[in-house]
Amino acid sequence: MVYSIKECGSIIEEQIKKLRIGHNAPKHLYEPVAYMLECGGKRLRPALTLMACNLFSDDIQQAIMPAVAIEVFHNFTLIHDDLMDNADVRRNRPTVHKKWSENTAILSGDAMHALAYRYLCRAPIELQPSLLNAFSIAALAVCEGQQYDMDFESDNEVTVENHFRMITLKTAALITASLCIGAICGGADQQNIETLHRLGVKFGTAFQIQDDWLDVYGNSDVFGKKLGGDILEGKKTYLLLTALQTADSDTGARLLSLLNNRTLPPEDKIGNVKAIYDQLEINQKAKQAISYCHSECASLLEKVNLSDNSRKKELENLITQLFNREK
Amino acid sequence: MVYSIKECGSIIEEQIKKLRIGHNAPKHLYEPVAYMLECGGKRLRPALTLMACNLFSDDIQQAIMPAVAIEVFHNFTLIHDDLMDNADVRRNRPTVHKKWSENTAILSGDAMHALAYRYLCRAPIELQPSLLNAFSIAALAVCEGQQYDMDFESDNEVTVENHFRMITLKTAALITASLCIGAICGGADQQNIETLHRLGVKFGTAFQIQDDWLDVYGNSDVFGKKLGGDILEGKKTYLLLTALQTADSDTGARLLSLLNNRTLPPEDKIGNVKAIYDQLEINQKAKQAISYCHSECASLLEKVNLSDNSRKKELENLITQLFNREK
Repeated sequence: MVYSIKECGSIIEEQIKKLRIGHNAPKHLYEPVAYMLECGGKRLRPALTLMACNLFSDDIQQAIMPAVAIEVFHNFTLIHDDLMDNADVRRNRPTVHKKWSENTAILSGDAMHALAYRYLCRAPIELQPSLLNAFSIAALAVCEGQQYDMDFESDNEVTVENHFRMITLKTAALITASLCIGAICGGADQQNIETLHRLGVKFGTAFQIQDDWLDVYGNSDVFGKKLGGDILEGKKTYLLLTALQTADSDTGARLLSLLNNRTLPPEDKIGNVKAIYDQLEINQKAKQAISYCHSECASLLEKVNLSDNSRKKELENLITQLFNREK
Repeated sequence: MVYSIKECGSIIEEQIKKLRIGHNAPKHLYEPVAYMLECGGKRLRPALTLMACNLFSDDIQQAIMPAVAIEVFHNFTLIHDDLMDNADVRRNRPTVHKKWSENTAILSGDAMHALAYRYLCRAPIELQPSLLNAFSIAALAVCEGQQYDMDFESDNEVTVENHFRMITLKTAALITASLCIGAICGGADQQNIETLHRLGVKFGTAFQIQDDWLDVYGNSDVFGKKLGGDILEGKKTYLLLTALQTADSDTGARLLSLLNNRTLPPEDKIGNVKAIYDQLEINQKAKQAISYCHSECASLLEKVNLSDNSRKKELENLITQLFNREK
């Protein structure tokens, strides 16, 4: 059978609930873990794992714990990223270090990192070496990507290419692993795993560009946080880097001086930067980049070699849905 | 052949050097990793892994990368513990968060945690599921133990039994895993692995009691840091908990009031607490506890079932050496 996006989501939610993580001892360690895991989120990565497994197998049972492992790992990275960025709010609630303490965020995050591997041990034994390999490659890549992202904050020479390499590590690696781990659980052959790997890189890259696009051009009622945050922080997004790369020297200088201006009221800063973006057609350029990635994803999904192509429908829907997301 | 303690140590040092971790990119991530890994330390855990493997196999090649994985994991916990404890110095050098920044300590620590699993992937495939299981159990236990240790700081009801449970998680779990992972790599049967597991718990417990003993009764010239640090911090060590448990109510109250006294000069505080310890024969009691663990370790090592008992000699020497260590 082919599971729908919704069914995959429910399976993950149910499994996470069933683990009753918040009831483990010591409670000061596991309560923040449960707080982080049980407050929703898109569950994109574990859903990708189940759906990738489902491409190759009717039975997705063996992919459930690896999918949960990926979601637990992802949430660990959010706790530590929020601490490093000193962010106050995540999913409309206080971040772990704000609600508890910095030490709690460090240690509960570490415990989630370890817990992810405990859950990987619940996969069928014969799959564990391949799963461990795919998982740990992604885990290390995420750390490397986060470091590049931090390095780029104070680096004025970042190119769009550097940025893509950073995204490939920080965002796309875990999305890629989600797909490949699902495929491994479903018994996919090496060639199909490699195709899904390439799809994951494209999809993860588009996912990040879209995040950055939403921060500027999204619908603030739906987006869940104030628009323009990246502009105020001077974050080197695809949008900003493309603007700097395509602007003439005068416009580029004006853009940089706007971003470095510490006296301008926030709304004016956002408005003025957006005006330059409009002049440089950054909205369209970002949409084109996303759309290019989307068509690449579609053609890679086509290349996945199955006897029954109708099995791809749900994953195709999920990808389209995510390319049209508003938050 | 049977490898000596020294040979095992050299193999580990060489392997760590050969990995050239500090040359990886991004350098802001890997330089602190190399700084932490290449500055020595006792290398106790990886040595235990190689020696446990060597009990069962002449060839210890397959245990080298798992041993390095354990050492990398151990050093990750030191970076994060130092950050959580706000410690300035480790092995006579500034701690990672002091030398670089708190964010560097968080992220480089996370990278080491991930890196440990990358190295585990270099073990023979057929061993990986057992290794992953033993490794991840210990990894999670260490986090749980660290949380109990932090909880106990503000808990006035901690018993010696609670303390032992905490040590079993925080210190003994990784020492136990070091032995078991070595045994798995050497092809040990389940019964021998279980015996080494029990040995690890005893050994790890003794190791921690001895750390606490050295902090009070050690030779300050050899110890490498000032004596009495635990007393000044009011740390709930085996020594303090045993003192509180055996003292009459007057002496117990005097001890607590001394520990809570914030105006007494440090040297006086240490001297007065030591006087109470002397009165309660805490020095002897701690030595007895260590000595009891030592004889338990010896009898468990005897129970390990080998065709050639002479193979146990080096591990026996290492254990005796560590029970007599001065730092």
